[in-house]
Amino acid sequence: MNDSTFQPIHEIGLPELVKRLEKYQGIPRTEIMKGSGDDAAIFSTHGNDSLSVATQIFMEGVHFDLTYHPLNHLGYKTVTAAVSDIYAMNTRPFQLLVNLAVPNMHSVQMVEKLYEGIELACKDYDMQITGGGTTASHQLLAISVTAIGKGNSEQVIYRSGSVKGDLICVTGDFGAAMAGLRILMREKNEWREKGDHHFMPDLANYEYVIKRQLFPAARKDVINMFGDNGITPGAMTVVTQGLVNALRNIATASSLGAEIFLPAIPISLETRRVADEMEEDVDKYAFYGGEDFELMFTLPENKINELEAHFDDFAVIGKLTDQKNLLIINTGGEDIIHIDL
Amino acid sequence: MNDSTFQPIHEIGLPELVKRLEKYQGIPRTEIMKGSGDDAAIFSTHGNDSLSVATQIFMEGVHFDLTYHPLNHLGYKTVTAAVSDIYAMNTRPFQLLVNLAVPNMHSVQMVEKLYEGIELACKDYDMQITGGGTTASHQLLAISVTAIGKGNSEQVIYRSGSVKGDLICVTGDFGAAMAGLRILMREKNEWREKGDHHFMPDLANYEYVIKRQLFPAARKDVINMFGDNGITPGAMTVVTQGLVNALRNIATASSLGAEIFLPAIPISLETRRVADEMEEDVDKYAFYGGEDFELMFTLPENKINELEAHFDDFAVIGKLTDQKNLLIINTGGEDIIHIDL
Repeated sequence: MNDSTFQPIHEIGLPELVKRLEKYQGIPRTEIMKGSGDDAAIFSTHGNDSLSVATQIFMEGVHFDLTYHPLNHLGYKTVTAAVSDIYAMNTRPFQLLVNLAVPNMHSVQMVEKLYEGIELACKDYDMQITGGGTTASHQLLAISVTAIGKGNSEQVIYRSGSVKGDLICVTGDFGAAMAGLRILMREKNEWREKGDHHFMPDLANYEYVIKRQLFPAARKDVINMFGDNGITPGAMTVVTQGLVNALRNIATASSLGAEIFLPAIPISLETRRVADEMEEDVDKYAFYGGEDFELMFTLPENKINELEAHFDDFAVIGKLTDQKNLLIINTGGEDIIHIDL
Repeated sequence: MNDSTFQPIHEIGLPELVKRLEKYQGIPRTEIMKGSGDDAAIFSTHGNDSLSVATQIFMEGVHFDLTYHPLNHLGYKTVTAAVSDIYAMNTRPFQLLVNLAVPNMHSVQMVEKLYEGIELACKDYDMQITGGGTTASHQLLAISVTAIGKGNSEQVIYRSGSVKGDLICVTGDFGAAMAGLRILMREKNEWREKGDHHFMPDLANYEYVIKRQLFPAARKDVINMFGDNGITPGAMTVVTQGLVNALRNIATASSLGAEIFLPAIPISLETRRVADEMEEDVDKYAFYGGEDFELMFTLPENKINELEAHFDDFAVIGKLTDQKNLLIINTGGEDIIHIDL
């Protein structure tokens, strides 16, 4: 390292750093169908099955806050995050590995509570826990999870694979996890200001958004529905960093653009109410909020009726275009988002 | 969680905590041949290949110290640790996933340096980097790595599989990584006490042990040698937490005991010299030191000649017994270690 070059990460930002690290690929292996650049890596050895693998790390103080996150819910959420990447390839998880780095001041019961949530998630997502380890941490809790899944090689779905005119569909609704986070942070600040150890936050009116933040579920049901009904989207991804990021990924993976109709984006009433209370723009929760863990997929227009016959928790929010941009258009016909791709 | 139960982890210790967490297994899956309890998990889908997966997490301040660990060497070492688990199953790695959690004050160049070491290791160990991610950390660097390997199902080697009378063999030598750590800590303390920013530690006489600590290699050569010559040990493990821990694992996995002859344990001259300088017992470095990344395997006595014909970097240190204990016996015939198993 040249000591004269010291460029702090915040100067270029994490996304740019991640881009610079893409050049490190190791040695190309024929077992790997898809390395980095999708929700999960895809590989195989023999037979018709493809395997998928995804891994994530969660750091206390960055990705979670133990002052309001119950440990069992936190454990569940980390598994949800990893298996969402497995489902996004149209594969099904069967194996989980967990690494914990735990500060010494934590209690045995806290770690067991965390594992109870991990185990509950493994039962919900049909996974065996096969390894990893528990080690010490200097100050903060760190959790890394690795999920492995499998699926028929011909039914693996990548971010690419869309054609111009395909409709863009999403499951569930958006911005709720962000709304939940805003409420939890508000209550935490109030508790801090009041300094009252008997302070009880009033969360009764925010049950849905708080659950979406603290205890989110992966869309296993959608993957089962696809499998049961022989529906194979052209492309798919999981929405973990807001709709705009996912739309950009889905469009650029097929060298296309996207045009989204704002009123079509599903947002729950509770999410809207929170944004109103916060005097914030609810669309921004959906665009940039993150941690929705909903699926985004593309289908030709003539396949939508078939999907509707089997499933109703989805919305068509727009379509893929041959323009090199991502547009989000409001009811007045104005593009409130215009990003060159 | 019952709020009245708060047992700090240090009261029971990490090994006991790990034991308590073994009850969390998720759902048994037929794809999994071996879940937790060995060096890596083993699974398969179709065909003759078995897949192996191992994951580890490394926390700044616990597992590494950036004041003396060059980042490229650190990157290399994390991969060595993960692939050592893959080799210990007699499988070969082909895929690596990396999660980094990086404090914002770190530089782009530091992260790239770390990745240079990761990539060099992937080239040495024939792996493609297929995913993971880079995210923020509050204060300390955290690295988690997941390695995936494969091998012929009939040649996978577990910790179990030994029979009474089998000889216990080890590759390389022991305690060197610990000796290197002792030197590095001594120099760091001296630098701190002197408070001299121009302080240059004199490490010329400790090259071997420092390399073993900062830049260790996995024993790919041994696995290749086994494969090339059709040698399949009965049991195998990697020695990452000292010889005593590995011996305990190898013996108990086959419900046997072990008897080790102390003078047979290979320890380098440089390691011995460091222990002398420190006025410490060099045997303790080998017994409990850790991070040797050498392989321990068992073979019937009549197979040792065959192994010797192809390979000389190994030593027979003892044998498996039907006693329920682990004995390490010195030249005087006394058992200096006697652990009930």
